[in-house]
Amino acid sequence: MVPLAEQYPWTTLPFIVGAPMRQLAMARLAVEVSAAGGFGFIGAGESLDEVDSYLEQAASLVKGHELLQTYYEKSGVLPVGFGFFDWAPAEDLEKCMVAVKKWKPAAVWQFGAYKNQDYAVWAEKIRKMGEGKTQVWIQVGSVADALEVAKTARPDVLVVQGTDAGGHGLETGAGIISLLPEVADALDATGITDINLIAAGGIMDGRGVAATLVLGANGACLGTRFLASEEANIGNGYRQEVIRASDGGMNTARTKIYDKLRGTTLWPVGYNARGVLNQSFHDHNAGLALEENRKLYDEAMKQGDAGWGVNGRITTYAGTGVGLVKSVMKGGDIVKELQQQALRRLEAVTPKL
Amino acid sequence: MVPLAEQYPWTTLPFIVGAPMRQLAMARLAVEVSAAGGFGFIGAGESLDEVDSYLEQAASLVKGHELLQTYYEKSGVLPVGFGFFDWAPAEDLEKCMVAVKKWKPAAVWQFGAYKNQDYAVWAEKIRKMGEGKTQVWIQVGSVADALEVAKTARPDVLVVQGTDAGGHGLETGAGIISLLPEVADALDATGITDINLIAAGGIMDGRGVAATLVLGANGACLGTRFLASEEANIGNGYRQEVIRASDGGMNTARTKIYDKLRGTTLWPVGYNARGVLNQSFHDHNAGLALEENRKLYDEAMKQGDAGWGVNGRITTYAGTGVGLVKSVMKGGDIVKELQQQALRRLEAVTPKL
Repeated sequence: MVPLAEQYPWTTLPFIVGAPMRQLAMARLAVEVSAAGGFGFIGAGESLDEVDSYLEQAASLVKGHELLQTYYEKSGVLPVGFGFFDWAPAEDLEKCMVAVKKWKPAAVWQFGAYKNQDYAVWAEKIRKMGEGKTQVWIQVGSVADALEVAKTARPDVLVVQGTDAGGHGLETGAGIISLLPEVADALDATGITDINLIAAGGIMDGRGVAATLVLGANGACLGTRFLASEEANIGNGYRQEVIRASDGGMNTARTKIYDKLRGTTLWPVGYNARGVLNQSFHDHNAGLALEENRKLYDEAMKQGDAGWGVNGRITTYAGTGVGLVKSVMKGGDIVKELQQQALRRLEAVTPKL
Repeated sequence: MVPLAEQYPWTTLPFIVGAPMRQLAMARLAVEVSAAGGFGFIGAGESLDEVDSYLEQAASLVKGHELLQTYYEKSGVLPVGFGFFDWAPAEDLEKCMVAVKKWKPAAVWQFGAYKNQDYAVWAEKIRKMGEGKTQVWIQVGSVADALEVAKTARPDVLVVQGTDAGGHGLETGAGIISLLPEVADALDATGITDINLIAAGGIMDGRGVAATLVLGANGACLGTRFLASEEANIGNGYRQEVIRASDGGMNTARTKIYDKLRGTTLWPVGYNARGVLNQSFHDHNAGLALEENRKLYDEAMKQGDAGWGVNGRITTYAGTGVGLVKSVMKGGDIVKELQQQALRRLEAVTPKL
């Protein structure tokens, strides 16, 4: 297995990934994360027409960071990645492949396939269009999926997403406390030893990062924490709700109602998304008809920042650890703080024993 | 804060706790865990008439372990604990208090109160009857409960239970990856610094133990892993199902159906329990009437070991990490293996960075 820091030589350890949050993590945040020694992903989601422009913007922003720019010029690899949903129409995904060929992002992150075999199909295309420069990352949420995807798509990286994650993921699942080590053992048992594992779901600070490393991950991926970065493409109302919300086990839930209100209908069976509880959620649980709930949602959308919040109706996707996010920071400072905290925790605990 | 290893001087680090699993963790397992340097709890549950005999048995078994017996003779503290459910009738809990006065177990573990204030009431009684020798542990599953219980009952130890845990817990919750650090921060912010934190839920091996330490816990509590100990008071069919089951995020669920079939009806609103999916669960989800499901359950109960399993109907309570439990070991060997694995993981990860 090639260590991640060799594979992506602009990175430093512990290995920190900025999740490809759709519409929220764009070129600005991705480049900021990579420039600080992490690996930033752009959340292309299903807006695949725009991938070319996202990567063009990233390539332009990279010029502002000497280390990244030098790497880009020498290697021809754009030191960010982007993520797409495999459930998007194939013709849109093909447009992505053209962008891969043109920009050679360091990795493409697949998620949300209708069937695991789809990942292998697109992995092959990504590898071909990337001409050996673009690696394949695939996110899974169960041991069974991890094994099947590892065997069939042979990704360079498996992102193992625990059920604490914000946004979309499997309806049922385990936290990374048990999921990550079981995936690691299952891969070992099949003799697959060349796939790096990135843990995702509930990681908010250096303590979580350190925990993923001792659990057996090669790095940690954070989404919610980066929502509170200056570079996130996020409404102020959303960001303030991330700062406000706490006790995420009680005040977030995995649900389909937010997708229904937002009109996102293409997610495969078995997926839902975790968000902060709000009035839409409570009304839905109290039996309000979807049609009526959607009308109220559409009205809230016109309120701007006031539409978010516990009495609001606009969706605040966030993980169970949302209560650990207390302030807005530069994305690069978040990366460095995560790394320093993780090291401090490991050093603090290890010699005491 | 008094370090746990000073407070309970027969223990070694990392601090390992055997959970008070009702009917499953009895005196034999508890003493085995304590004799190996852990802290073993007896799961009295609501069978409170028998607490006196459980502790008598523990005191007798302690004689077989020189270190424990010496400690017991010198301190007058029985080096095991027991756990009860606060929802049990008050007259039964009063009988427990008599047993506390007689045997002075090192700790009593409270869980499942109808309201958080009940913990404070019984904490005071435990302290009085324990005459300074018996400490108070309380298990919580949210940041809000942790704060309220810490302020009102002032336990010596808070057990912070993540939603990955097997058996009973809150219906909704977070994994310890985010719950434990948020509880730690919330207590710090209120100036409460004298309560040790034990993490529970999804911890199965030394990787999980090491993770809890870097997350900020002072020790780790395991239940499911000890089901596969030689000393657990468990049917062979149950134990074999724990060994067999895997991918617990997909193959266990938090549900009330097992309580309903078993006739356990006194748990407070907001609690359910995590168990391995079986035929009872699937039939319930498919709409089978409870009465009919219970009839089938009662028949399965007569089958003995064959009544468990994926096609069986007897309940297999277990956590999401059940797939990491692969063999039956002596409880003491489990404790030592957990400690060694945790140290190895911390040592392996720390210098690499």
